[in-house]
Amino acid sequence: MSIVTVLTDFGTDNEFVGVMKGVIYGIAPDAKIVDLTHNILRHDVREGAISIWRAYPYFPQGTAHVFVVDPGVGTRRRPIAARIHGQYFVGPDNGLLTPIIEDAERDGKPVEIVHLQNQKYWLEKVSRTFHGRDVFSPVGAHLANGASLEDMGAVITDPVRLNLPKPVKVANGWEAHISVIDSFGNMTLDLPAAALDGRTDVLFRLKGVAVSGIVESYGHKSVGDLVAVVDSEEYLEIAVVNGSAKEKLNAAVGDMVEVVFSG
Amino acid sequence: MSIVTVLTDFGTDNEFVGVMKGVIYGIAPDAKIVDLTHNILRHDVREGAISIWRAYPYFPQGTAHVFVVDPGVGTRRRPIAARIHGQYFVGPDNGLLTPIIEDAERDGKPVEIVHLQNQKYWLEKVSRTFHGRDVFSPVGAHLANGASLEDMGAVITDPVRLNLPKPVKVANGWEAHISVIDSFGNMTLDLPAAALDGRTDVLFRLKGVAVSGIVESYGHKSVGDLVAVVDSEEYLEIAVVNGSAKEKLNAAVGDMVEVVFSG
Amino acid sequence: MSIVTVLTDFGTDNEFVGVMKGVIYGIAPDAKIVDLTHNILRHDVREGAISIWRAYPYFPQGTAHVFVVDPGVGTRRRPIAARIHGQYFVGPDNGLLTPIIEDAERDGKPVEIVHLQNQKYWLEKVSRTFHGRDVFSPVGAHLANGASLEDMGAVITDPVRLNLPKPVKVANGWEAHISVIDSFGNMTLDLPAAALDGRTDVLFRLKGVAVSGIVESYGHKSVGDLVAVVDSEEYLEIAVVNGSAKEKLNAAVGDMVEVVFSG
Repeated sequence: MSIVTVLTDFGTDNEFVGVMKGVIYGIAPDAKIVDLTHNILRHDVREGAISIWRAYPYFPQGTAHVFVVDPGVGTRRRPIAARIHGQYFVGPDNGLLTPIIEDAERDGKPVEIVHLQNQKYWLEKVSRTFHGRDVFSPVGAHLANGASLEDMGAVITDPVRLNLPKPVKVANGWEAHISVIDSFGNMTLDLPAAALDGRTDVLFRLKGVAVSGIVESYGHKSVGDLVAVVDSEEYLEIAVVNGSAKEKLNAAVGDMVEVVFSG
Repeated sequence: MSIVTVLTDFGTDNEFVGVMKGVIYGIAPDAKIVDLTHNILRHDVREGAISIWRAYPYFPQGTAHVFVVDPGVGTRRRPIAARIHGQYFVGPDNGLLTPIIEDAERDGKPVEIVHLQNQKYWLEKVSRTFHGRDVFSPVGAHLANGASLEDMGAVITDPVRLNLPKPVKVANGWEAHISVIDSFGNMTLDLPAAALDGRTDVLFRLKGVAVSGIVESYGHKSVGDLVAVVDSEEYLEIAVVNGSAKEKLNAAVGDMVEVVFSG
Repeated sequence: MSIVTVLTDFGTDNEFVGVMKGVIYGIAPDAKIVDLTHNILRHDVREGAISIWRAYPYFPQGTAHVFVVDPGVGTRRRPIAARIHGQYFVGPDNGLLTPIIEDAERDGKPVEIVHLQNQKYWLEKVSRTFHGRDVFSPVGAHLANGASLEDMGAVITDPVRLNLPKPVKVANGWEAHISVIDSFGNMTLDLPAAALDGRTDVLFRLKGVAVSGIVESYGHKSVGDLVAVVDSEEYLEIAVVNGSAKEKLNAAVGDMVEVVFSG
């Protein structure tokens, strides 16, 4: 058993994603296919990169992740596949792996990436506009079957990288940013809770408001209150109890959040 | 083979549901995962309860249903798992099982519920805000693998119950309510067709209109007509042929419907 | 291993599709289920027919496709199942198979269709309004299990056919039509690229604009440009680079497109 995940910006209004699954099962009939999401904002490589980065730690060794946010399909952008942390990642070379690669480098873990060139692992006929179906799905299925990454193309060491904002240490705290907003309007910062070194005397300033302290979970405050919590991936998060922080503050991904030690 | 179903109010715009599936397959690689829906209105426990109640009769013995409509995550609300009709149900103790429990009690069937406390069946690290991933998904996967419900925690007999409206027998018929509105705008009542004892001389009064009699299916009347039918779960339903009864009548779940014998 | 695909107009806001999967796995526990889409425009048989026609070539032999776009459920419209190109198709007899049948006839391939009558392959209790669950899902699951199509009902040769527009050869080119618009707003014509006999000196006229020539892929022109490409099924397509041709031109399925040789 191995898992193939699929992440795209195709939406689910037509048969595109289903067709990718037909291709995958045709090659890897014993695989399990998991949808990560198909509602990445169209062509938003950054959003796709963050989503796969947050998801992969919950998948078993050997999982193959196929991601198709691919505005450059049919141009010279390279198709790539990678092995990191014992899992496989397949898609266009447009930066989608940036946070996963950066984490591996920080932790001293190996990152192996190949430029997909061996057409034996692709569909026989490759279209100009749907490499998700013709290249990435079959490659993901072959990797799930145990095919050799090295046989699929030449090793590269210069994958395209996104320039993601990073939190900055300042005199009395951090300058962080909103990195993810979920469907409830909860807003995750790019600052791990660990960066606070256990201090809780902290003030969050953003969009003209201030939130003081960190609560254990949403239910510890009243409906409508702005709160800061530690999110499920151990990052700091700004939320509104049973409401939408995004709407209340008219906030967007990338907005700056000052995190100030108040002690 | 066993099935794990997943029902949430997370939507499908990000990787949350996919991550739950990664956790489930990591523990139960032979399971089949079925999405019931992820579009329950945010925090609408009642809607989730009705949805799982309508769905479970179509699943085989041994299926584990994981439901995550969980506004109280991270507070003292109990995580629970139940065995009813040979199937398993896992989620927060907030009333989600109410109609299933009430049916079992009416039919004299056993209801076994435990307060989940044995962390051996959870992920090693449990967040404050995502028990769907850290507690309910792993418990559902272990149950699908054949783990013992009794080993997961102490038996409880006081699960939280929703106060769902009930149809009331009146002199010449019933006072019923709209309990479900589907995506077509068809409106199911909380009154089973069997309550009419085979009578068809019946008038439905709601929102200032009256619908007379019951037709066999939508196609037996003209486009735009208001009709009453017996729905696919043998409950009475008000619909508009090729249209939306919800929109035509500006109706909502909970609205009262008088069902009057006209003979 | 065999695959059952599911295509409906039910949306994903409730448990309907999940219930169909419970029925399928109950009968065919080793099947893989693939969603094609559940967002076919309500009752739009034409859209469902085009979607299944574009998808099936990417599925292996023996796949059973269950389609439920069924405005006539509960009336006298026939439930049918077909075997074409070694795959199975199950649904209401309302024209959903038209383009698949027409292709098979053009290619001299056999088309076998039966009127589903043998209730041994259905759920025990069949509702008036949900044959997707009670008839089509169980029949699809039994076919995936290897049951005999011929045992399911009498052969018919007069399936309902949609009157789909066809491209017309004219003096200096073709009169084609928009047949599909995807979620990006890319518009596929009903004219295969092969109909141009390799000529590229071609002008597309639609909605008061003209597009000259055919480019290799979207990325070969500038953002916002109207372009013609060969789509992933080898049909001609009008698109806007990183934008929506549908919105730019206010176009709709069925709109005429003149394809003129300019040489």
